[in-house]
Amino acid sequence: MLIVMTSDARAEDIEKVLEKIDALGYRGHTMPGENRTAIGITGNPGSIDPTHFENLTGVAQAIRVTQPYKLISKDLRPEKSIVKVGTATIGGHELAIIAGPCALEKHEQVFAAAETVAASGAKFFRGGAFKPRTSPYAFQGLGIEGLKMLAEVRDQFGLNIVTEAMDEHGVDAVVEYGDCIQIGARNMQNFSLLRYAGKTRKPVLLKRGLSATLDELLLAAEYIMSEGNYDVILCERGIRTFSNHARNTIDLSIIPAVHRLTHLPIIVDPSHGTGHNYMVTPLARAGVAVGADGLIIEVHPKPEEAMCDGAQALTPGQYLELVKEVMAIKSVLADKPHSEPASA
Amino acid sequence: MLIVMTSDARAEDIEKVLEKIDALGYRGHTMPGENRTAIGITGNPGSIDPTHFENLTGVAQAIRVTQPYKLISKDLRPEKSIVKVGTATIGGHELAIIAGPCALEKHEQVFAAAETVAASGAKFFRGGAFKPRTSPYAFQGLGIEGLKMLAEVRDQFGLNIVTEAMDEHGVDAVVEYGDCIQIGARNMQNFSLLRYAGKTRKPVLLKRGLSATLDELLLAAEYIMSEGNYDVILCERGIRTFSNHARNTIDLSIIPAVHRLTHLPIIVDPSHGTGHNYMVTPLARAGVAVGADGLIIEVHPKPEEAMCDGAQALTPGQYLELVKEVMAIKSVLADKPHSEPASA
Amino acid sequence: MLIVMTSDARAEDIEKVLEKIDALGYRGHTMPGENRTAIGITGNPGSIDPTHFENLTGVAQAIRVTQPYKLISKDLRPEKSIVKVGTATIGGHELAIIAGPCALEKHEQVFAAAETVAASGAKFFRGGAFKPRTSPYAFQGLGIEGLKMLAEVRDQFGLNIVTEAMDEHGVDAVVEYGDCIQIGARNMQNFSLLRYAGKTRKPVLLKRGLSATLDELLLAAEYIMSEGNYDVILCERGIRTFSNHARNTIDLSIIPAVHRLTHLPIIVDPSHGTGHNYMVTPLARAGVAVGADGLIIEVHPKPEEAMCDGAQALTPGQYLELVKEVMAIKSVLADKPHSEPASA
Amino acid sequence: MLIVMTSDARAEDIEKVLEKIDALGYRGHTMPGENRTAIGITGNPGSIDPTHFENLTGVAQAIRVTQPYKLISKDLRPEKSIVKVGTATIGGHELAIIAGPCALEKHEQVFAAAETVAASGAKFFRGGAFKPRTSPYAFQGLGIEGLKMLAEVRDQFGLNIVTEAMDEHGVDAVVEYGDCIQIGARNMQNFSLLRYAGKTRKPVLLKRGLSATLDELLLAAEYIMSEGNYDVILCERGIRTFSNHARNTIDLSIIPAVHRLTHLPIIVDPSHGTGHNYMVTPLARAGVAVGADGLIIEVHPKPEEAMCDGAQALTPGQYLELVKEVMAIKSVLADKPHSEPASA
Repeated sequence: MLIVMTSDARAEDIEKVLEKIDALGYRGHTMPGENRTAIGITGNPGSIDPTHFENLTGVAQAIRVTQPYKLISKDLRPEKSIVKVGTATIGGHELAIIAGPCALEKHEQVFAAAETVAASGAKFFRGGAFKPRTSPYAFQGLGIEGLKMLAEVRDQFGLNIVTEAMDEHGVDAVVEYGDCIQIGARNMQNFSLLRYAGKTRKPVLLKRGLSATLDELLLAAEYIMSEGNYDVILCERGIRTFSNHARNTIDLSIIPAVHRLTHLPIIVDPSHGTGHNYMVTPLARAGVAVGADGLIIEVHPKPEEAMCDGAQALTPGQYLELVKEVMAIKSVLADKPHSEPASA
Repeated sequence: MLIVMTSDARAEDIEKVLEKIDALGYRGHTMPGENRTAIGITGNPGSIDPTHFENLTGVAQAIRVTQPYKLISKDLRPEKSIVKVGTATIGGHELAIIAGPCALEKHEQVFAAAETVAASGAKFFRGGAFKPRTSPYAFQGLGIEGLKMLAEVRDQFGLNIVTEAMDEHGVDAVVEYGDCIQIGARNMQNFSLLRYAGKTRKPVLLKRGLSATLDELLLAAEYIMSEGNYDVILCERGIRTFSNHARNTIDLSIIPAVHRLTHLPIIVDPSHGTGHNYMVTPLARAGVAVGADGLIIEVHPKPEEAMCDGAQALTPGQYLELVKEVMAIKSVLADKPHSEPASA
Repeated sequence: MLIVMTSDARAEDIEKVLEKIDALGYRGHTMPGENRTAIGITGNPGSIDPTHFENLTGVAQAIRVTQPYKLISKDLRPEKSIVKVGTATIGGHELAIIAGPCALEKHEQVFAAAETVAASGAKFFRGGAFKPRTSPYAFQGLGIEGLKMLAEVRDQFGLNIVTEAMDEHGVDAVVEYGDCIQIGARNMQNFSLLRYAGKTRKPVLLKRGLSATLDELLLAAEYIMSEGNYDVILCERGIRTFSNHARNTIDLSIIPAVHRLTHLPIIVDPSHGTGHNYMVTPLARAGVAVGADGLIIEVHPKPEEAMCDGAQALTPGQYLELVKEVMAIKSVLADKPHSEPASA
Repeated sequence: MLIVMTSDARAEDIEKVLEKIDALGYRGHTMPGENRTAIGITGNPGSIDPTHFENLTGVAQAIRVTQPYKLISKDLRPEKSIVKVGTATIGGHELAIIAGPCALEKHEQVFAAAETVAASGAKFFRGGAFKPRTSPYAFQGLGIEGLKMLAEVRDQFGLNIVTEAMDEHGVDAVVEYGDCIQIGARNMQNFSLLRYAGKTRKPVLLKRGLSATLDELLLAAEYIMSEGNYDVILCERGIRTFSNHARNTIDLSIIPAVHRLTHLPIIVDPSHGTGHNYMVTPLARAGVAVGADGLIIEVHPKPEEAMCDGAQALTPGQYLELVKEVMAIKSVLADKPHSEPASA
């Protein structure tokens, strides 16, 4: 931490900051400047709460220097994590494709989608049994009945099941029926849920919150991992900005940033990230090109009949074309270790 | 809902939209324009999912017209709701002031704060026993022990207790020990928690999420109310924007907007909304001037020793001065019905 | 500036940073920590470009410490600036009210508005002769003819004229006919225009850009002042965020921030800041309560006939009521030096 | 335009809206619904100002339906525009690469950069002679002397020159010495400058403003084109959001949106868009994968010595590797008409 004093701070103000640093058991380093004095702090085991200093007389700013996370960090584990999800993995050399309908509705629709997904070579099936809906009057999902359908899909097609849990009961159910617990954007800072998922031994797909900074996303992962569950996959799904031509703004620069700081895999969701059918494939290509470890895609046998988010779901034909295109891009980048920037 | 066709839509595309409207049991109204045709839909009981139309050939846009909420609406209940919280009310002519420390820490500190709050004439005491913290390594609150302290504060000072619940266990505990369940910004779209709080009969203080639109805030309230709990108080606590001189950007224009659309009371949190001690009082004054029904303020006997958010807590002296100033402003506005814009 | 090294930086990387600091003529202060080394820089006359360091091997971050502005700073001039605009002032104890129609249209309308403004006791008249319009097909203003109308208004009502210039020709014209050059939000970083206005000796009303940080606003003022024109008034007019119930999000926390850092006056524009008639008066009250030095308000004899922004213009009756309300709030705050937070 | 009435609007309020529509020479279509009446407007030649209606009694909302632009629209010109810039083109099948240093500094540095750019096969050279800098105390560019260097680069390497103009004098100078007038993000709504550039016959590279919506970007292009200059190239360079791991947030979803609505080419600037060296190549790959017509890249022989934005400039080695990678991706997408979504 760096304490910057105001230009009119007195010697006694500086003295008081140094005493406070001392009292906390750290070491202060005074650096007098032309106009202001700055005081560096070392000797602290983790990050320091700036509020210890911000209200002392003569303090202009307390600037954090040490990063507040541990388990997600490359400092701790320099090699990339490869997360096992059912019978397959995410984070290795292969591109992970998770596909399926937004919400589970009818048996027939789910199986038609699963057939397409299996045919594409993807190894993961998605589908919401518990749906977080902005309105209490919108379709809320099939619940346990939906999870049972997903288990059938796994049995029949060998696809690994990724599905959302919205609360502790949901986590228990996904642990029973699924292969990967998805935590949605709106729950990214539902710390109780994060801890609960951290106590299971199922991998967790953690979606970035609509207004989450990189630090907050990483600390949400840290919540899960601090309970002993190290199998976390991050997901960029668009953030909320003023920009209104897409439902959200996909922030692809987070992919290289995550690869630089952490050992965790990160995938991209171009379906929720854009909200428009015609944008999904271009953004999926971009996600792979930027270095993501995978994609999560909505595909529906008849998007115009979907009960939820039909406007962004791909038809089976569009989806199969998407897979072909992203695989071509992936193969072009094959020799590039994706945790490293191109030519740094 | 209004369906706008593209300029090259064919007669058969329009026909297909009309058939779809028919199939849903509604009525379509075709309006041919110079370049494009628009189709109005009427006869729908509630709002229509635009995805029914967005992927049909020739459809450029599906624009929602009906608002998706019911229970919060002035259409349903034109007079302002006055919510009873313990022995006092929020939403009536009196300004509600909720004050106390961010997190409960030590008995002595809590009681010193409570003494100041009671002395100011405020009727509500706040203090976090369960703290949502960005980092798993930060102080997480005293839990039940903290709630017991709050119950003691109520007994001793007659203050009504407002405190946060982060999960179902927390809701149960607040129902037992407190007077009002606070749902924090990060949980505003934790729909399971909203429903659970909706099943209690304690009033709920619902804070606006960091990236929540007005509609989303109102629909979150609607979740609680749709379970039968109509005692909801909204709270503006700052949104996340690019602006970086304050921790969040307080969006005061939501106060007149809420008063125009709903019968619910809304208060302002200038402490979390700004994150800086020196901004709290000016923004509290602004919140009252804009027409808020109350304020929630952090006050701490020794802000520089606070374990959480000390930089924004007021000293007892600053807090008492704040109350004096906002009361003076409130009295100037006394004759103004706050559900109505000034002179509309 | 503080240079933070990565945890795996080598002694020679640190050495290289120190050499670079030396080469620039500054002084480096090495502070070895548990995991990382930080290096403080002192002896620099102004702010240092972080790019000198960010690409050196082993550098994790270069953190700016010194503020980049000079002339706007309270360090330079501790007492508040009172800016003379025509025959009146902005920044003193009196609340400055600038009112008038958005765009100048017809003589009759302009004079009807001016009569209302003069009757309210306001000392400044606004009205756009050159209008920045998003679309090239929208009404662009009356130009010089409009400025002549404004000059007539000044002659007849004794009101001081504030009007926008969009380019150098516009600045010349406003210098000739008006009393204060308004620079609009979209031109806040039109650095050529800022410099040109800085070469005149007319006061400048500088509106905050839609996505301008506090620092950028202050540096835009600094551009004007660095050319020798010290008469700058800042204006908060709402920023662009995801929030969509108002046209822009008024960020009132910038008022205490500006008063803390600078000696410049700052006013609030609740008309453009909200875009809705019914929000203007509540936000005007809030602006005064937060400590602004003035308001700029749109008033139109017949808002529904306005060629531009009619939805936000107040009727004469609404405007006169607004003035009464804000004056009452101002008088309540009268004894408060507005450059100081309440009780800091 | 669609006028939505409030649920308590009276028959006479509806009548008044219909009269207003009539008075404007359009046709009103009344659609009574369960709760509210909506009124569609047709017969309008262009877009209608909503303010004509928003303040009438009983009007809840006026919703725009017709798009406000003409010349940029695919309705007007269905085939993609290919813009000639000097001896090369942007918008055709070939990927356009514009590269060079951020600011022009020394002759030697400029020529070293140009050599690298020419060697890569790129056809366009960039370099700022007039630099928009946030602070008046930062390096402002070499001016005309810099433009002369650029003209030399063209003569020696056959590269076409793209360089920024900040005002009318700058436009005149770029017309004399360069091949393409760049209008920077901060000037995207400097309407006087747009018109002035529209009067030249040099192509214009128009960068998206930091807080510009798609509509505003397209209308800025429309300003230029409405003066008779149809050679406009758009550029996504990152928007301003709360997200802070990159300097700006690159919004790649605008690429398919622009290709869907307009015939104009659009390129991506991953250097300013991210502000970090290690992000430039991944985002350049993503930009090509999403379907952009080109890239604009900062390359500097010695980034650590750059006077401006060194942290984001690539070394010659990194740049050459980037070109190889993006060309490989481009070739994979070769058979895809980039104005069309993948398989729509």
